[in-house]
Amino acid sequence: MKKSLVYKILEKNLLEGLLKEGKEVSIKVNQTLTQDSTGTMVYLQLESMGIKNIKTDLSVAYIDHNTLQSGFENADDHEFIKSAAAKYGIVFSKPGNGICHQLHLERFGKPGDVLIGSDSHTPTCGGLGMLSIGSGGLDVAIAMAKGYYYLKVPKILNIELKGKLNSWVSAKDVILYVLKELSVKGGVGYIVEYSGEGVKELSVTDRATITNMGAELGATTSIFPSDAVTKDFLIKQNREADFTEIYADENAVYDKKIIINLEDIKPMTAKPHSPDNVVCVKDINELKVDQVAIGSCTNSSYTDLMKVAKILKGKKVHPDVSLVISPGSSNIIKMMSDNGALGDLICAGARILEAACGPCIGMGQAPKTNAISLRTFNRNFKGRCGTKNADVYLVSPETAAVSAITGYLTDPSNFGQMPLVDIPDKFDVYENYFIYPTENRDNLEVIMGPNIKPFPVNQGLNEMINGKVLLKTGDNITTDDIMPSNAKLLPFRSNIPELSKHCFGTIVDNFDERAKNNDGGIVIGGENYGQGSSREHAALVPLYLGVKAVIAKSFARIHKANLINSGIIPLVFKDKEDYDRFDEFDDLELENIIEALNNKEELNLINNTKKITTKLIFKGSDRDIEILKCGGYLNYAKGLNN
Amino acid sequence: MKKSLVYKILEKNLLEGLLKEGKEVSIKVNQTLTQDSTGTMVYLQLESMGIKNIKTDLSVAYIDHNTLQSGFENADDHEFIKSAAAKYGIVFSKPGNGICHQLHLERFGKPGDVLIGSDSHTPTCGGLGMLSIGSGGLDVAIAMAKGYYYLKVPKILNIELKGKLNSWVSAKDVILYVLKELSVKGGVGYIVEYSGEGVKELSVTDRATITNMGAELGATTSIFPSDAVTKDFLIKQNREADFTEIYADENAVYDKKIIINLEDIKPMTAKPHSPDNVVCVKDINELKVDQVAIGSCTNSSYTDLMKVAKILKGKKVHPDVSLVISPGSSNIIKMMSDNGALGDLICAGARILEAACGPCIGMGQAPKTNAISLRTFNRNFKGRCGTKNADVYLVSPETAAVSAITGYLTDPSNFGQMPLVDIPDKFDVYENYFIYPTENRDNLEVIMGPNIKPFPVNQGLNEMINGKVLLKTGDNITTDDIMPSNAKLLPFRSNIPELSKHCFGTIVDNFDERAKNNDGGIVIGGENYGQGSSREHAALVPLYLGVKAVIAKSFARIHKANLINSGIIPLVFKDKEDYDRFDEFDDLELENIIEALNNKEELNLINNTKKITTKLIFKGSDRDIEILKCGGYLNYAKGLNN
Repeated sequence: MKKSLVYKILEKNLLEGLLKEGKEVSIKVNQTLTQDSTGTMVYLQLESMGIKNIKTDLSVAYIDHNTLQSGFENADDHEFIKSAAAKYGIVFSKPGNGICHQLHLERFGKPGDVLIGSDSHTPTCGGLGMLSIGSGGLDVAIAMAKGYYYLKVPKILNIELKGKLNSWVSAKDVILYVLKELSVKGGVGYIVEYSGEGVKELSVTDRATITNMGAELGATTSIFPSDAVTKDFLIKQNREADFTEIYADENAVYDKKIIINLEDIKPMTAKPHSPDNVVCVKDINELKVDQVAIGSCTNSSYTDLMKVAKILKGKKVHPDVSLVISPGSSNIIKMMSDNGALGDLICAGARILEAACGPCIGMGQAPKTNAISLRTFNRNFKGRCGTKNADVYLVSPETAAVSAITGYLTDPSNFGQMPLVDIPDKFDVYENYFIYPTENRDNLEVIMGPNIKPFPVNQGLNEMINGKVLLKTGDNITTDDIMPSNAKLLPFRSNIPELSKHCFGTIVDNFDERAKNNDGGIVIGGENYGQGSSREHAALVPLYLGVKAVIAKSFARIHKANLINSGIIPLVFKDKEDYDRFDEFDDLELENIIEALNNKEELNLINNTKKITTKLIFKGSDRDIEILKCGGYLNYAKGLNN
Repeated sequence: MKKSLVYKILEKNLLEGLLKEGKEVSIKVNQTLTQDSTGTMVYLQLESMGIKNIKTDLSVAYIDHNTLQSGFENADDHEFIKSAAAKYGIVFSKPGNGICHQLHLERFGKPGDVLIGSDSHTPTCGGLGMLSIGSGGLDVAIAMAKGYYYLKVPKILNIELKGKLNSWVSAKDVILYVLKELSVKGGVGYIVEYSGEGVKELSVTDRATITNMGAELGATTSIFPSDAVTKDFLIKQNREADFTEIYADENAVYDKKIIINLEDIKPMTAKPHSPDNVVCVKDINELKVDQVAIGSCTNSSYTDLMKVAKILKGKKVHPDVSLVISPGSSNIIKMMSDNGALGDLICAGARILEAACGPCIGMGQAPKTNAISLRTFNRNFKGRCGTKNADVYLVSPETAAVSAITGYLTDPSNFGQMPLVDIPDKFDVYENYFIYPTENRDNLEVIMGPNIKPFPVNQGLNEMINGKVLLKTGDNITTDDIMPSNAKLLPFRSNIPELSKHCFGTIVDNFDERAKNNDGGIVIGGENYGQGSSREHAALVPLYLGVKAVIAKSFARIHKANLINSGIIPLVFKDKEDYDRFDEFDDLELENIIEALNNKEELNLINNTKKITTKLIFKGSDRDIEILKCGGYLNYAKGLNN
């Protein structure tokens, strides 16, 4: 069978399972990356596993998210991650170095290898021909500790690119065009594999822009072949040794295929409030702009920012526009400083921020009330910019730069000759923001500031669970109900005890006290329990509070997996009407649990208060049962030899 | 009589009064500056005065404080100030342009003129021979509207500088040395005037570092003569026309004089938690450093940052140190970008922030728990850095840069040859961050986002005040008790109604409701009522809530002035023991108030609840009485013809 690029990489790295769509396999992980917002939990999880050395070829801990440091919490998180990196042999990237995905593309990504990262835009390195998957933090911790990653083999969607891009049209317009065609659900269950003659026309950073925003398609990841363009990129980054040519077989088998002619694409914009709400820029008239923000892991490469500098050279930012630029890496600032382009940006009146995620994740630069903000970023969800009533339009760097001058959303096509960027033969490579692990690490300890609390670890499952109904919820409870997340709570992502004070905060005021006063217990839910964000904290915090089981009419898929990973048993009523027979603080008892799970039998729930017995069902795989018996995925993984 | 430099300027600008120590005079104001943290209130006050044009030669509104923009409030403040600047003919400096004092020194300050600014470090321009005084926002609003400023003529302290600075010793060490000699109270009631042969050895930016931190001496301001060094600076800034030579007469009369030999000064540091807790750097052993922060209005000039770049060139920031640099102006970044110095900083591993106040005012870069942070800033008060248990040491840029490399607080004297900085013949001057007012401004309106509320304006004083005792406080109540200020409340500096919900928040939960339910009323205080910060909001918010009088055993000086400026009458008990005869919610009545004030008579306070009458006294000047009768300083100033 003719193989896709994705299958070639999966096959190379396959450890266990059948490489067939829909089947669960485990694959060897070559590299991992973390950022600081999700990273604290990853390293708490790693710390709880008691390992000495990581099993990957390379793992990198980047600091790029919480760089404003309005309180001690961020700096403590940075220190904690730095100390954990030193202890386990992980490369640490200091704040100021740049954005994880941009840096990883420049410095570490390898064609044909597998990268797992605790950030949804990890697919950026797909631009290099690397299979790069964003995942939950626990998966990254286990990838580091054990060297593997489990996934259900996705379907493969082939996008064949034909032709050449028009003048003033760039990679961002391509992925916006794809989002317009496929929508934000179009990639769910797929890996997107690009091919075709059009691929040759795109640089590695162009390709990375496209794979980066594959996350917005809902795809597992996106990938380009590794070819002469890739080789040229790696040579310029002084990494020729990392090059491998890798591409799909001719006439490879795909689950779905679409063809895009690059010549059909014009400058595009995603209107508020979804990345797939895409139209041509020229179809929007007279939109006055208040803010233009350029940067993010999507569009902060040397080429992107050089184009912006060339457009702004000798021009002036419109007086009513705040133009803010957050470069992708310190290397890029250095090169643009040396060649005069940074000076051109300053002369035009741009605000130059630190090389970090910055405004893309709402870390500063919230625009004014009712603002129109053009951003070269990847998401324009309502409120993400920090201003609830602002309208964010996603655009290319070219459209952003031209509009910053005119003060209106402007199709750059009419702005004269498109500037050409000369790519230097060698990119600058600085090492002073990186801290490489030392050989002798035996005596190193992780440093936990007062805001960093150990990760809660469960015990193995008992045959019997006894406890009170701590809460009975309605239908469609979200993970935001279970564990709210907002600006006030974000600094406590590494402090489960503090977060636990707000558990179920949208439903009841004192869930934590209920749990503590009753020595933990059981939660009863309605339909679709745990929908919404994939937040692991919505399982970790109940675990910390002693919740032993959740019994519901039905569960949302990811939250059920997170409960199992935490060792909290998710059970459904055999007869949904039994839900009505329970009240808060009823005294419940589950017996012979392990026996029932092993034998795939129904479980008996005894309500000692109401003197009734109810039938429950566990729906999960054999591996899920093994994980539950161990008391969660961490314990399960710890117990495995490899 | 031989005149001091200060008296020469005061005499030139004198409008009213006798130029004699301790006497109140009014002087013509040539220039004003505001920053955004205090500026919103200034422009609300200006807006309430109903003028068309400002009376100063030049007024500039800078945005440099609230530049992180974690919510819409900051951007709305920027827009409001921009629109007010446009309406009244004020120059607007966009965020990203730099720090107000650094920019004003570079671009606008004029020897021999008077500058009033709503920031305590306004004296920075004293380095140019400009009389530059930091004041409350209302004074700046009135200076713009009316062109004058009232002050009590301070005493003059002459500091004569002899000799030359040692290698590796710079202006920051000089002012730290002065602080060690005089303490943070040493300048209270004084203007500090520098003279002597040592002055010639100091550049204008050196002098500005020294006058800037005169604020920490408690001095009204500090000033250097304008000489050939000043002329050279202005020529290089393309502003030769702004030069005037001005200096004290030989043997001028001073109230106090001290002599400092520059050769006696070594690299100094102010230890936690006061700028006058100064020792020699070499006397501190083995102090491991976690953070080094370079910048602020004290030490962010081209020369300062070039010295830092030269020290760091080819070196590496210690792995355990976070080195963060916030340049003073966009011009400086541009010049350092063009000459390669910015690249040297990046190669070393420094974090480069936007040109703004940044970490100096706790806007980001809070260090980790229990951190040691070396800062080239002007204040090291406990908690100001954003981390309550951090220890901040104030140092020179040289000490900061060398310590960033070694990882320990290090006397730079042992670090080889001190780098020399060549000052270019011409400094870069960019205009694109400035918005200059247009000629025709008749139809312009100020733009107030939802967080910006109009300034509360009082009515003229009535003959009778009738109201309940809304609160009875103990002794030594601070302005922080009256109107708390913290990270949560700072974004509401332009929103008096929102702030009012927290009025007296440290003493009672619902003062605002008490005030509203009783249609305003009277507050009773003990000794030293209103001590602490000079915060105007501690009077404006009670005004908004309808407080008509405060009756206390005694008042702190500045808060009493703020009450008068707001039109709230401050009265003291003739017999302090009468304080004990009042309770909260007693119904009080004051009659014939204006008559009593005019005749300098005691006032009768009738307690209708207790059926007693108590004698009260008003202590203030004739002008204070006129201000009260008008209902505050704004109304008073509005009523004047000039």
